[in-house]
This record gives sequence, C-alpha cells and structure tokens, in this order.
Amino acid sequence: MCLMTPKIARFLADQQPATPCLVVDLSIVAEQYQALHKALPTGRIHYAVKANPASAILTCLHQLGSYFDIASPGEIDLCLQAGIPAAKLSFGHTVKTARSIAYAHQKGLTLFAFDCLEELEKLAQHAPGCSVFCRLGVLNTGAEWPLSRKFGTTVEHAFTLLTKARALGLKPAGLSFHVGSQQTHIEAYAEAIAQAAELYHRLDKEQNITLDFINMGGGFPTYYRTPIPAIDQFGQAITTAMQTHFPHHAPQILLEPGRYMVGSAGIVQTEVVLASHRGNREDEPRWVYLDIGRFGGLAETEGEAIRYAFQTPYDKTSTHYSPCILAGPSCDSMDVLYEKNPVPLPDELKTGDKLIILSTGAYVSTYCSTGFNGFPPLKEYYL
Amino acid sequence: MCLMTPKIARFLADQQPATPCLVVDLSIVAEQYQALHKALPTGRIHYAVKANPASAILTCLHQLGSYFDIASPGEIDLCLQAGIPAAKLSFGHTVKTARSIAYAHQKGLTLFAFDCLEELEKLAQHAPGCSVFCRLGVLNTGAEWPLSRKFGTTVEHAFTLLTKARALGLKPAGLSFHVGSQQTHIEAYAEAIAQAAELYHRLDKEQNITLDFINMGGGFPTYYRTPIPAIDQFGQAITTAMQTHFPHHAPQILLEPGRYMVGSAGIVQTEVVLASHRGNREDEPRWVYLDIGRFGGLAETEGEAIRYAFQTPYDKTSTHYSPCILAGPSCDSMDVLYEKNPVPLPDELKTGDKLIILSTGAYVSTYCSTGFNGFPPLKEYYL
Repeated sequence: MCLMTPKIARFLADQQPATPCLVVDLSIVAEQYQALHKALPTGRIHYAVKANPASAILTCLHQLGSYFDIASPGEIDLCLQAGIPAAKLSFGHTVKTARSIAYAHQKGLTLFAFDCLEELEKLAQHAPGCSVFCRLGVLNTGAEWPLSRKFGTTVEHAFTLLTKARALGLKPAGLSFHVGSQQTHIEAYAEAIAQAAELYHRLDKEQNITLDFINMGGGFPTYYRTPIPAIDQFGQAITTAMQTHFPHHAPQILLEPGRYMVGSAGIVQTEVVLASHRGNREDEPRWVYLDIGRFGGLAETEGEAIRYAFQTPYDKTSTHYSPCILAGPSCDSMDVLYEKNPVPLPDELKTGDKLIILSTGAYVSTYCSTGFNGFPPLKEYYL
Repeated sequence: MCLMTPKIARFLADQQPATPCLVVDLSIVAEQYQALHKALPTGRIHYAVKANPASAILTCLHQLGSYFDIASPGEIDLCLQAGIPAAKLSFGHTVKTARSIAYAHQKGLTLFAFDCLEELEKLAQHAPGCSVFCRLGVLNTGAEWPLSRKFGTTVEHAFTLLTKARALGLKPAGLSFHVGSQQTHIEAYAEAIAQAAELYHRLDKEQNITLDFINMGGGFPTYYRTPIPAIDQFGQAITTAMQTHFPHHAPQILLEPGRYMVGSAGIVQTEVVLASHRGNREDEPRWVYLDIGRFGGLAETEGEAIRYAFQTPYDKTSTHYSPCILAGPSCDSMDVLYEKNPVPLPDELKTGDKLIILSTGAYVSTYCSTGFNGFPPLKEYYL
C-alpha cells in the first residue's frame, strides 16, 4: 500500500538519477482514480491540479475521464496545454483576482467557487452568466492538515449569497465544503453533508433554487505511516449520508481529490548529507541531514504535521534502530523536519546513503522553492 | 529609515509593473555596507548570499570590496559569474555533501565551516589542506527569527574538533557563532564573544593553536515595524567586548550580514485580491487577501515571526484604521500571514488596490515556490 513500486525501483536502479528527485508511477494514479470512481460511481471527479500539476498526470487523468479543479490562470494554461477542454475545468478557488476571473471566462470556464459577496460581485462583472457554487466552512476534526478560517462561510450567509447570485444573473449551481486535507475520520463527510442538505432543501423550498451539485472537496487521505480507512469506506459513508438527506432527488456529487490521487504514486529519493551525534551524548538522537528539506518540497512537515515513511538500504538487515532528528540541507535553522518526534532509523545509516521518502507524489514538487540557498528545484520523473 | 525610496517610487509610477513584484534599490544596499564598515572598520564583511543572490546585488557589493558567504555550489557559481574571485568566498554552511565540498575545492575556495567530526573528516578528504572554522552553538535570546539546535556545537567539543582538524592536515582558522537572525539585543554579541574568547585562549595555551578570526555570523536586524538599535551600537558593543577579551592581540572579526544588508533595500508591491468581512460581524477583523503569501516569498511570516510594515494608497487621507487578517493568494489554508495579530489598515482599502510591503529585500525572492497553485515566481527588479 505504501511501498515503492517495481517500476520506480527499476528506474532508480537503472538510471541512478541525481538526488533529490521525485519519481511518480502513473499506474498508481490511474489505480487511485479507478478506486475512487468505483467507491462513488455517481461522483464527478475533479482532480485538484495544485496537488501535482505535471502534464503527465493531467494527461493520464484526462484519458480516464477526469474533470479538473484549478486555482489560477497558470493552472488553466497547464490543463488546456494538456488537451483538456475548458468545460471540464472548475475554478474552485474562492479568492481570485478580477483578471483571473476574466481570463478564465475568456478561455471558456463556466463554473466558479465563491464564499462572500465581494467575490460574487466580481464574478457577475467578469464572468457574467457563469455557474457558481458557495463554499461552506465546516469543522476539520480528524484532518492532519486542517484548514483554517481562511475559506468558507456559514449556512445562513450562504443562503443569502446564493439567492443574491441569481439576482446578479448568475446560476446558483451548488454548494461545496472541505473537511480538511488528509482527513481520516469517515464521519466528517456525513456531518458536512447534513449541513449542506439542510441548506439545499431550504433554498429549494423558500427560493425555488434547485442546486445541481454538492462539491465535497478533497481530503481523502494518503497512507503515510498510520493506517487509514479504505476509500470504499468513505464512499459508503457518503452514499449513506446522501440517501438519508436526499431520499427523493439527490444533487450530483462532485469530488476534488488531490493528495489522494497522487500522494502514494510518488517517492522522493534523497541522500544523507551528514549523519552525526554532533558531540552530544550517545543516547541522544542522531542528527541526519538530507539533501531535501522544508524549502525543497517537504513543506508539509511544518509543525511535523505530515509524517512521511522512509526506506533505507538497511531495512532488511539492520537489527538496531535509533531515533534520528531529520533536517534539510539549507542554512536555515527552521529547515528541520522531525525534531519533536524523531524518526527511528537503522544505526548503519551514514553520510552518502540514499533514502527513500514514501508517498510524496502530492504537494512536494509545487512547494519547492525556486532556489533557496542556491539549491536547484527538485527534479521530477513520471513513469 | 523604512520608507520607500524615491527611486523605487518613481519606478513603480513610471513602469506600473505587474504584481506581485520585488523592487530593490541598490543604493540602500551600498549604504548599509558602508554603515557596517564604518561601525566595525576592522571587520571583514562576508555578505550572506542566501539572503538575496541577485547578480545586481553581488556586483554592487563586490565593487565595494565585500567578501561573500555561500551555502551551496549554486551560490558559488552565482558569485563566480558575477566576477567575484574564489578567494573572497567562504563556505559557511556546516552541512555539505561530499560533492559540494569537492566542487568548492576545485573552484578554489579555501575556507569552510563545520561543527562535527564527520564533517571535518569529509573536509579533510575532499578539500585537503583547507582552512576550517568551527561553529559554536549560542543562545538566541532576543532574535525574532531564532535558530534551532540544528547548527553549532559546545565550547568543549569545539576544542577537541579544532585540535583534531590540525591532526587531519587542515588549518584551524577560526570560530563562528550566530546570535540568531533579526537579533535586536546588543548584549547577545558580547556574551557570545566571551564564550569564543575563552576557547580561543585555551586553544592557544594548551594546543599552541592560534586562530585567525572570530566569525560573528549575521543577525543584525532590519527595521520592520518596531525600533531597532543602530548598527553603530552593535559595532560599539562588539568592539568593547573584543577589547575586554583580547587586551593584547585580537583575532580578526568576520561578519556575515544578509538580512541587514538587503532587507531594507527592497519592497514588494502586491494587489488586494479580495477584502471582505465574509459575512462575519462588522466588529470582527476584515479578511484581506493579497496576491503574495507564504508560498510566494513571505515565508518568514510563519508563526507571524517577521511582522512587515505596509503602505497603502490611503495613508495620508484615511481617518479610520481597522484590524485586518492578511492572507495569501493560494488555496492553501495555511497561507495566512497575520491572523493572531491582525494588521491595522485603512477602512478604504478594497479589492484591486495596490499595497506596498516594506523591508522585503531579504529572504523573499528565494523562499518563493516554483509555482505553487500555478502562480509564477515573484518578479524582481534591481534599480
């Protein structure tokens, strides 16, 4: 489930690419897409391009029938260049410049998110007649990369806004929510669906507005180091909740998976730059410095939130593991990955060894800095 | 002191560059260099290239006589391309791949930092005969961007290591410490110098090792929103401490300013993407979303550590300021700049307005991600 695939292993052995590098197995991306499609056959899948915008991934998912969720004009261009029609793109970012909206409108996008009046007015002005969906703020309990108050509004305010949307000549098309990234609580979806359903029925009854869809965002987890529920369990929970709250006619389900789709498809190969006790007592954790860190792509280790799993050359032979503090290669002293909760690694691990960081297909290539401390951006390979 | 310079103001008015962009006035960089040189005439200044590696800055400082501190082969190349001789470069990063050391050695660098035995052995192997300096860990009290335990060793261990350096055929040349970036406590230097002096004298007496220099790192602050001590005060404190601890023959002083040198020389111009109460109560802070955020270069707002100052088009006319939560343009809900401590901004500020973020010449262009959420890297202009 969270192992290096034979294809990636062969590539590393044959090509011996310079480290650090990201290697993604596209067949896993396809498997993840199929598994989600099977778990929720009626759901329309919009891949969240921000998770990994590599053209190989976009092409792979386009061939499978995926829709796409984009966050900027740059991502629109990437999708169009990959041959994806504008009709398959949704602009799911609630905060957009007027120029971005106009650009998307001009390119043929018709579906836009919002969560406040000012954004709705921008949409009415720069993408007249478009379909809009309002993002609700919901609790992110259970998410390992929870969302802040940055996005989403209340059910009460969403009611007012969607009514207003119609008055502005826009089509009120849906609701969205996001239960938080790397969400491991299955119940999170049911609770959010209940909120959305209440609003859906109220709009229908009081305003004669029948929404087309509920967009459940992303959040489906990737396996890192602790077990996660199977995607079927999420599918079942969502199906049950939808049947409960929409016994007669149900709106369509939209999904925006990002991490789920590509996270487990990729690995990062890194080199140990230095492994040392640094003069500390032998029973204190060793420091292991890698050639990738928080500013080279592993930004989600901030606060030690996402805990990656590692493979070393000694996994089959080592008899003794000791806790290691992992740090990145830069001069920045914030560039430490795991210090509060050190990672057990084989005592044999030494300077110059190669290390594999598993499940790094999502949110790694894109967080990478342009050249912090003079290190070039992460190299990427798609197999 | 922390105002936009006339040159930058004219550039923005005449060129109307697309936002977000970084604009740096090189005359301020020169002024900062001269002020530090005047405050510590005997100090040898190694500009910390990582703060901003733009070739215009390297060229400007090279012409003024500066030395340079680099962190990677990439930064070596940038300096050599700018016409800076290898003899003026020090490799101040204590953690380097063997390849990086060999590359630096081959390019003619002779001065390297270290803080543990394994790194010393790498240096002996890949840069035989080079000069080395050992980094001490010191407390970072008073620093707004404090350093972790990632770098530096104890005085006791440094004694052993510098003795060992000689045995390995290397030249034990100095000690270094770093009091923490954006250090506002003048006393921090005196305390660190006392520690270094004790070790210096002990090496001299017990091992007959006379070090050439004490490298005091960087840390000198940039003005953001609260008053900072003048650079002369730091110079005076360092001079006094050196006279106290080295009454007869004093080692040379090396300095590695980064933020100090370029921070106040640059501004970021950004656009308000959205300003909204988002349906919250009117007495709650407004949300102001900018087209630059934590992943577009403002990484040092993590934990709200560095608090930038802002200029708006309404600063001369507005009579009412209210607290605003500032957030970046990405879909990432961690991309919030100031939420715990909102920033007072004029009530007139609205979507589409331009905002100036002051003192952003350091550690902004380099932290910028390659294309997070499809946003292109920050544009840079050097005047």
